[in-house]
Amino acid sequence: MNRIKTAIVGASGYTGMELLRLLLVHPGVELVAATSRQEAGKSLADVFPRFGAAPGAALRFIEPDPDVIAATGAKVAFLALPHGVAAEIARALLERGLRVIDLSADFRLRDAAVYEEFYGHAHPAPELLAEAVYGLPEIRAEEIRAARLVASPGCYPTSILLPLLPLLRENLIDPATIVANSMSGVSGAGRKADLTLLFCECNESARAYGVPKHRHLSEIEQELSLAAGEKIIITFIPHLIPVNAGIATTTTAKLREGVSPDAIGAALEKAYAGESFVRLLGKGGCADTKNVTRTNFIDIGWQHDPRTGRVLLMSAEDNLGKGAGGQAVQSFNLMCGFKATDGLQNF
Amino acid sequence: MNRIKTAIVGASGYTGMELLRLLLVHPGVELVAATSRQEAGKSLADVFPRFGAAPGAALRFIEPDPDVIAATGAKVAFLALPHGVAAEIARALLERGLRVIDLSADFRLRDAAVYEEFYGHAHPAPELLAEAVYGLPEIRAEEIRAARLVASPGCYPTSILLPLLPLLRENLIDPATIVANSMSGVSGAGRKADLTLLFCECNESARAYGVPKHRHLSEIEQELSLAAGEKIIITFIPHLIPVNAGIATTTTAKLREGVSPDAIGAALEKAYAGESFVRLLGKGGCADTKNVTRTNFIDIGWQHDPRTGRVLLMSAEDNLGKGAGGQAVQSFNLMCGFKATDGLQNF
Amino acid sequence: MNRIKTAIVGASGYTGMELLRLLLVHPGVELVAATSRQEAGKSLADVFPRFGAAPGAALRFIEPDPDVIAATGAKVAFLALPHGVAAEIARALLERGLRVIDLSADFRLRDAAVYEEFYGHAHPAPELLAEAVYGLPEIRAEEIRAARLVASPGCYPTSILLPLLPLLRENLIDPATIVANSMSGVSGAGRKADLTLLFCECNESARAYGVPKHRHLSEIEQELSLAAGEKIIITFIPHLIPVNAGIATTTTAKLREGVSPDAIGAALEKAYAGESFVRLLGKGGCADTKNVTRTNFIDIGWQHDPRTGRVLLMSAEDNLGKGAGGQAVQSFNLMCGFKATDGLQNF
Amino acid sequence: MNRIKTAIVGASGYTGMELLRLLLVHPGVELVAATSRQEAGKSLADVFPRFGAAPGAALRFIEPDPDVIAATGAKVAFLALPHGVAAEIARALLERGLRVIDLSADFRLRDAAVYEEFYGHAHPAPELLAEAVYGLPEIRAEEIRAARLVASPGCYPTSILLPLLPLLRENLIDPATIVANSMSGVSGAGRKADLTLLFCECNESARAYGVPKHRHLSEIEQELSLAAGEKIIITFIPHLIPVNAGIATTTTAKLREGVSPDAIGAALEKAYAGESFVRLLGKGGCADTKNVTRTNFIDIGWQHDPRTGRVLLMSAEDNLGKGAGGQAVQSFNLMCGFKATDGLQNF
Repeated sequence: MNRIKTAIVGASGYTGMELLRLLLVHPGVELVAATSRQEAGKSLADVFPRFGAAPGAALRFIEPDPDVIAATGAKVAFLALPHGVAAEIARALLERGLRVIDLSADFRLRDAAVYEEFYGHAHPAPELLAEAVYGLPEIRAEEIRAARLVASPGCYPTSILLPLLPLLRENLIDPATIVANSMSGVSGAGRKADLTLLFCECNESARAYGVPKHRHLSEIEQELSLAAGEKIIITFIPHLIPVNAGIATTTTAKLREGVSPDAIGAALEKAYAGESFVRLLGKGGCADTKNVTRTNFIDIGWQHDPRTGRVLLMSAEDNLGKGAGGQAVQSFNLMCGFKATDGLQNF
Repeated sequence: MNRIKTAIVGASGYTGMELLRLLLVHPGVELVAATSRQEAGKSLADVFPRFGAAPGAALRFIEPDPDVIAATGAKVAFLALPHGVAAEIARALLERGLRVIDLSADFRLRDAAVYEEFYGHAHPAPELLAEAVYGLPEIRAEEIRAARLVASPGCYPTSILLPLLPLLRENLIDPATIVANSMSGVSGAGRKADLTLLFCECNESARAYGVPKHRHLSEIEQELSLAAGEKIIITFIPHLIPVNAGIATTTTAKLREGVSPDAIGAALEKAYAGESFVRLLGKGGCADTKNVTRTNFIDIGWQHDPRTGRVLLMSAEDNLGKGAGGQAVQSFNLMCGFKATDGLQNF
Repeated sequence: MNRIKTAIVGASGYTGMELLRLLLVHPGVELVAATSRQEAGKSLADVFPRFGAAPGAALRFIEPDPDVIAATGAKVAFLALPHGVAAEIARALLERGLRVIDLSADFRLRDAAVYEEFYGHAHPAPELLAEAVYGLPEIRAEEIRAARLVASPGCYPTSILLPLLPLLRENLIDPATIVANSMSGVSGAGRKADLTLLFCECNESARAYGVPKHRHLSEIEQELSLAAGEKIIITFIPHLIPVNAGIATTTTAKLREGVSPDAIGAALEKAYAGESFVRLLGKGGCADTKNVTRTNFIDIGWQHDPRTGRVLLMSAEDNLGKGAGGQAVQSFNLMCGFKATDGLQNF
Repeated sequence: MNRIKTAIVGASGYTGMELLRLLLVHPGVELVAATSRQEAGKSLADVFPRFGAAPGAALRFIEPDPDVIAATGAKVAFLALPHGVAAEIARALLERGLRVIDLSADFRLRDAAVYEEFYGHAHPAPELLAEAVYGLPEIRAEEIRAARLVASPGCYPTSILLPLLPLLRENLIDPATIVANSMSGVSGAGRKADLTLLFCECNESARAYGVPKHRHLSEIEQELSLAAGEKIIITFIPHLIPVNAGIATTTTAKLREGVSPDAIGAALEKAYAGESFVRLLGKGGCADTKNVTRTNFIDIGWQHDPRTGRVLLMSAEDNLGKGAGGQAVQSFNLMCGFKATDGLQNF
């Protein structure tokens, strides 16, 4: 297999660690650069002993200098950086001829004003928004294949959009009644020395946070609106629970009058037949994060409540997998002409 | 303090264990009987080494024979038994002059037909339903004080009812839009040898279950309907998460047109001023289970989303505490004329 | 009960939190001061929502100024400060007439040179070492009663000393063969924003650390040597495991030739008969941390291996309880003439 | 690659699950049979939703009938059965021409009398003991390559033997002073409905068990004795901790007089140079289970304590990986002429 020279920019956080885990053994990847301001000079194996014997783990972290990255011959760069920071380096790498898969929020929104509303600062590279592709491979495979700049979706949005989009496209539910509840593992909060993320603060704890206007709402509502052909606003409630990784989301909405509940299952089947990473659990299936951790799968089950007329969508993914690194590699496979499952065949 | 002779019937499960924890050191209690078919003959200390040095831990489990229990001189009996089983022994103990605090579902519903619909069998003692008091002390203190038979509420219902009832009574929200999402610790599933409750099956796992018609909906909807003065049906989605104890619930509903969001906080303040075990976190407060485990507190915060017009209620309790054993002791204190915090002053 | 005006200096860490939990509801305590440089100005309830409704939780953290503390009328001060820092403030408080219970390592060693060897800096108050009492209440109750300055033992030392001391005093084991292995919950590492203490770094992880010369060896060997009447050096291996609290220690040593294994149990029984907080599990008893968390108990079981001639001692305590805050309150009760179990009757 | 028809007998426990995880995607394996009395008739995907989209997951569990297994054309069978049960089916499969890799204890001991002493019943197939190879690939690669019957080592023994064997072979330590302490994840206790393995019983708990004569001592001492050329008896203390998987072991022994501590590192380096799955952490390296979970690696660090003259060996492995399924696949790779890392290149 033709191995693509690849860089990871911002490789010392949890998303970066997941990208390393996948790319170090991806048959189509030659990892030529991994950056980290904090760890520059150390080897991957020094920072992540888990990778101690992996091929390529002797590679040393470098500073995130675009010229140095380009000089490695990298053709594709994954960015696992904070929003605001990612856009600048994405621009610099694009100018040097690399294709970019950005895992931050910087290129997910089409409208710079919405970005500013939700992220609190002006967009650092608005001129690139038009060409960026929101990288949900199940929805935009063709555009991703050809893309120069992919904005890989957020973890919560992935778990909410994949179950909902087919229902909205077929006009089965009333968008004004959508409520999405998510529970996320602690890795979703990042690898930073923060008192609230200590073991003793998170263990034996469960709580909502970030309500009522979590930043991920911006991309969720953008994509739902595109699918529905009308402006959609939803309620989204994220929670933190004591697991390392995994998101379980339960989304409810009223079925439109006259729609048969069976249409739910049919719409999901139609949308995801042939997809490698969406596993449909059918009616009554309650997705469990423990079945998807460290994989690129999203499991989706559904239920209908005749008492309330609501449909329930239960989805589970790994926030670092299908919700971040795995999904980015899925886009990478499309961009490079690899098989969907290359480097993602983990169980 | 006058010590009341007290029995616990069904004391070897997790709810029984919590009752033991509280009652062994309650200043107004003399524990005279604890029953368990499985553990009969062993001491409390044998079965629960945690209580090894507690006063009274040498007491031996006995079979749940009503005559034997009555012969101990017990004036009050707590029942921590499966539904269906509790009703029979409750009747027998009432006939022998004891007052009964039942922690099962058997006496929570006023309508035997609803019981049969949700629990799948005819009610074992329908003649007692009329006198049973649904034991939410913040709502029915007077009736509990005088009660011969208290039906202590379920864990999920407590976490949903206490935030919602004041809003419904004041007609602030649209009942048709209520969606309640709960996450529960594993102790809520009971202490039984079941493959799905093994450490390795629950750890690093999160999932919905029991949708769309969990049994607790029956009592939730009964009490909401009573408060609203109309029949209410809601969506309730329970989830299992890897903590020993604790329930975090997030409930949403549309604010009625013209109602000021501030009315939410005001209604909660009015309802729970002076209550010992409801801690109001105010607007923006996100209740965290880690602050309430092993206590009888319920923490309640709220938020308003002007984008959707929905109110969010975030509540947290210990499913074994305020959701079971603690709340039952709270009723006991009312019934016996003790101070609200007697035996419940734990942090 | 006569309530003693009490201060906690350094009350915003995990040990401070445990002291607050115990002292806020201790019947003999009036908490008049709690200090924290970081949290000065906030109330106890602000920093620790768990205590939100506790009597006295409106108290505000103050800076650790000895004059201000003395001005509150405090008669006793608990110090939960880092080593090196504690000694200075202990001296200042003693000079102002307070009695001091220090939970740091500063006054545990009789020899300032040993302190310097293990802690890496000169002792800050060597003139106080002679009068400080190493506060193991089961061993030195009389001295603690009269003490002006108590050095409350470390968490690991408590779990190792209590099982071993009776065996050494009676010369039952060969001290040169002692190996102690401990597993500690993460709260033992303190409440500080440190990457290695993040949930995702500690969860699903187990590892040894701090070998071969953990600081606690200094006080362990001092006390073992005193009991044996000879200089003792042991092997001690601490491990970190993913629980909030609790230490389980297994200590092995060769039985001296000719000693009957039964002498082990007899020595333990003799040493701890009548002690409120040592629970002997007998031969074959394997102590489990889950039975002692949030209590002041230490559970001790033992076993003999005729194949190797070794005795095994299995002990469990809460590192924040008997290993820190609980034990300090136990000394406090002695110093103030309270009952042993006052304020410590938790299960 | 030539794909070997392979069977897993007893595939519904945790070890079976790990074997499935590895073999379903092993490039050299065609899985033709998986047996389970309890799950017969269900597909692998039904029982283990994690494998829902794996190639081959539609395979259905069958009863463990040797004729049926042989009829599938299987050339190799992995046995993940309880001891006592495994021997009978191993014999039947060998008679039918299959090669057998047994993960139970049945063929690990050379002496049937020792088996009976430790396992409490007569050996079910003593005539096979002479040809069985104790399958530690780092120690007996040549014999494993040619073997018809491999006895894959126990989880604890692997973590104790690999660090110790080189030291004993070179006579660096005094065998009479060996003490091994291990902490194991709960999956090591198996997938069975047992009250003591419930989430709430294991979470927030740590305890020793099975002392002083855990069954694994039999194979540990056999292999240590073979390496040392003399009969060796050691102290081994297993503990249960709340992680799904992973064993951390700390082993201590006195360095023989006159031996330089550097000889420890040198012996380890010499023994494991070129080995794919032993990662030496060097002096001061404290192995952490989180770096080896879901891999076939064992990490080994060491330390020397000049105060006591003891060496400390810190090792970590996944009890289901290098301690069970991974190691069995490592032997399989040897037996089939595959590369050492085939199917085991996970991180």
